[in-house]
Amino acid sequence: MTTTNNPKKWIIKNGVFATGQAIVEGCMVIEDGMIAYIGSQEPEDASQLPSVEGKGLLFMPGLVNSHGHTAMSLLRGYGDDMVLQEWLQTKMWPMEAKFTSDDVYWGSSLSIVEMLKSGTTTFLDMYDHMDRVAQVVDESGMRAVLARGVIGLCSEEEQERKLAESIAFAKNWHGGANGRITVMMSPHAPYTCPPAYIERFVQAAHDLDLPLHTHMSETAAEVQQNVNDYGLRPVAHLEKLGFFSRPSLVAHAVHLTDEEIEILAANKVAVSHNPGSNLKLASGVAKVPQMLKAGVVVSLGTDSSASNNNLDMFEEMRLAALIHKGVSGDPTAVPALEALRMGTLYGAQSLYLDNLGTLEAGMKADFIALDVDQAHFLPRTDYISHVVYSAAGQDVRHVWVEGRQVVKNRECLLLDEEKIRFEAQAAFEGLLAR
Amino acid sequence: MTTTNNPKKWIIKNGVFATGQAIVEGCMVIEDGMIAYIGSQEPEDASQLPSVEGKGLLFMPGLVNSHGHTAMSLLRGYGDDMVLQEWLQTKMWPMEAKFTSDDVYWGSSLSIVEMLKSGTTTFLDMYDHMDRVAQVVDESGMRAVLARGVIGLCSEEEQERKLAESIAFAKNWHGGANGRITVMMSPHAPYTCPPAYIERFVQAAHDLDLPLHTHMSETAAEVQQNVNDYGLRPVAHLEKLGFFSRPSLVAHAVHLTDEEIEILAANKVAVSHNPGSNLKLASGVAKVPQMLKAGVVVSLGTDSSASNNNLDMFEEMRLAALIHKGVSGDPTAVPALEALRMGTLYGAQSLYLDNLGTLEAGMKADFIALDVDQAHFLPRTDYISHVVYSAAGQDVRHVWVEGRQVVKNRECLLLDEEKIRFEAQAAFEGLLAR
Repeated sequence: MTTTNNPKKWIIKNGVFATGQAIVEGCMVIEDGMIAYIGSQEPEDASQLPSVEGKGLLFMPGLVNSHGHTAMSLLRGYGDDMVLQEWLQTKMWPMEAKFTSDDVYWGSSLSIVEMLKSGTTTFLDMYDHMDRVAQVVDESGMRAVLARGVIGLCSEEEQERKLAESIAFAKNWHGGANGRITVMMSPHAPYTCPPAYIERFVQAAHDLDLPLHTHMSETAAEVQQNVNDYGLRPVAHLEKLGFFSRPSLVAHAVHLTDEEIEILAANKVAVSHNPGSNLKLASGVAKVPQMLKAGVVVSLGTDSSASNNNLDMFEEMRLAALIHKGVSGDPTAVPALEALRMGTLYGAQSLYLDNLGTLEAGMKADFIALDVDQAHFLPRTDYISHVVYSAAGQDVRHVWVEGRQVVKNRECLLLDEEKIRFEAQAAFEGLLAR
Repeated sequence: MTTTNNPKKWIIKNGVFATGQAIVEGCMVIEDGMIAYIGSQEPEDASQLPSVEGKGLLFMPGLVNSHGHTAMSLLRGYGDDMVLQEWLQTKMWPMEAKFTSDDVYWGSSLSIVEMLKSGTTTFLDMYDHMDRVAQVVDESGMRAVLARGVIGLCSEEEQERKLAESIAFAKNWHGGANGRITVMMSPHAPYTCPPAYIERFVQAAHDLDLPLHTHMSETAAEVQQNVNDYGLRPVAHLEKLGFFSRPSLVAHAVHLTDEEIEILAANKVAVSHNPGSNLKLASGVAKVPQMLKAGVVVSLGTDSSASNNNLDMFEEMRLAALIHKGVSGDPTAVPALEALRMGTLYGAQSLYLDNLGTLEAGMKADFIALDVDQAHFLPRTDYISHVVYSAAGQDVRHVWVEGRQVVKNRECLLLDEEKIRFEAQAAFEGLLAR
């Protein structure tokens, strides 16, 4: 582990910047964790500022992973190629039932190492023992939106306890880690929470002025179950419960009717599209081109590394750009720049984070640098195309969050990677042995 | 550029080996370019052999890319997100018409750097100026199957010239580069070659005792055109022309009926599935689970980096494992081990190369080593799963072809990477300027 200086004001020179709108060749000034200037001309005080050489690097906004369960990295590769219910019942749930708060700490640490090194600067996590996740976020220098994901299929007493825990977590951690942590209220899903319980989360979100997050319409079976149980498909069900009266983000949204897409758009509900996980679990292919066309903010999430099986957001951008072309038969569906925005700006919007997701003056200085002196970034035709259709997480060389460098030459500066790898493996072996 | 010693007999100790059938922890002995032994016990002469330390590395068969056009790396990112005919007519064809043999040399060199560093040890190339591609293969230490891809929509005189060129290339290069180069005869596609011309390639393949390769049924439109022009779908058309009387490999095969799959299986025709390219060009999703079930050998190809846009075979394995689950709704479709075999053993079989594609005694020593001391390879649950669902080309640290090391610590030993990057960029700029 090395340390780094974090000057108040500094400059990157001779860089190429994929801002999220255009390509700028020139320099970028960072001041107090914000982007103060970006352009082809050097500002007047450039020569007096500490500087970083940008030659051979492509700078772009840090990636935003809008849905996942980071502690589940401990179950990566523990069950694959199985029917969903068998996978959940024989593999995931028995192991997750044994998770301690330390398991969550080391699993989330492993995920944060992987995410930071592959260029993700902000992630949403929905899980349990969220205090321990917040602890790693604080230590790592990363930005996160944290949500205690609550399953309500339990006694009223336990429901009370979980809701109280969610509220306490929000009060403790919303705005924590110097503002890098925000909180969402999160009933797990319409099929795991009774309607009255979901309404209590909606009320709590109103009381605390927080957004809401939930899983929705991931599989055809759960949509049918919703219809059987409540006489409504999940979108109308959640709308009826007031869910969309709050700023809200739904994960998956694979099985939607055209009318449901209109309801989401009208209510400004954001969607976290998880293409890798949806394919791997055979859930289906979400109607992303239609959602984008209707004006829904669609961002990208990896889901957990138990159903992905990595946390590389370059892959999710590429999948989003590729599968909707192949399935729709339209090669212009989800073009490269739109996929890049889904992985950056729309991610920030989905998480209700302001001033984040592009490289512009006035935006938070969360950005990454890719080593483009490599064969797969040649020729120098179109950097946006190369980022979406050719790059991978391992091309990321440096990462900054709020102007502070957290990855340098592919090493995490604030985390002990070797210890985390060792402890995560030990935690998995402990789960197996218990 | 550095050099390396290539001892006649040597051993890798303390490695983990994904053989293509199982995981072996132990050692592997290489002798005269072949695998002499693999197992958990050290052989008696182990202490006298030059050894390589395998700790922290996962060894697996080199990847086999069974369809591509390497020179087209010069057009990576030059046109994306466009309708196919517009892309071909306004972007690809005008530029390709300007390609000189030097352009092919530098474009193929760029692709070979990318392929070797991402773990591909054998590739098929179908293009023009194949002498120059053979030259790079010879220099690089890589293994290749080369085919002069011939478009027959031209005068009889030009048809004669191209066929003669194909035959001369086969005579010059089949068995070249110390046996690392083999040749296939390759009419470009049923829609670009008149039937009588295809028959002449079939005859030449018989005369030279070589396999045949062609594009087939990539788009719904070309299938319909075949029916309009010849009254038959492409499979029956090629069968009628005697194409399948030779060992043959067809690329794409996206649009097949169940009967066509049976014909391919009955004739032992191999298929190169190109999932990335088929998605990006919106060609559709091939019926891979059905083909595998019918006994068709299905391997994987990247197609060119103009329609992919990289040559990372880990990505093609992952796409093959993911998209058929998502599209079919069956999470057990194309499990991890099958995807790995598609990228290795089935690739070798598709290219009619013997003793290649697994790590076993008696097989050619074409193999790669992945750095698995990284977060995304943890925990140590299932290395096959990690390779298919989590790894990327950049995880490859070392590469050997026929026992000779060609990549060491992520650097090509036999190629000048910096010069190749420079010359490829210059070649692209030259094409733009002409």
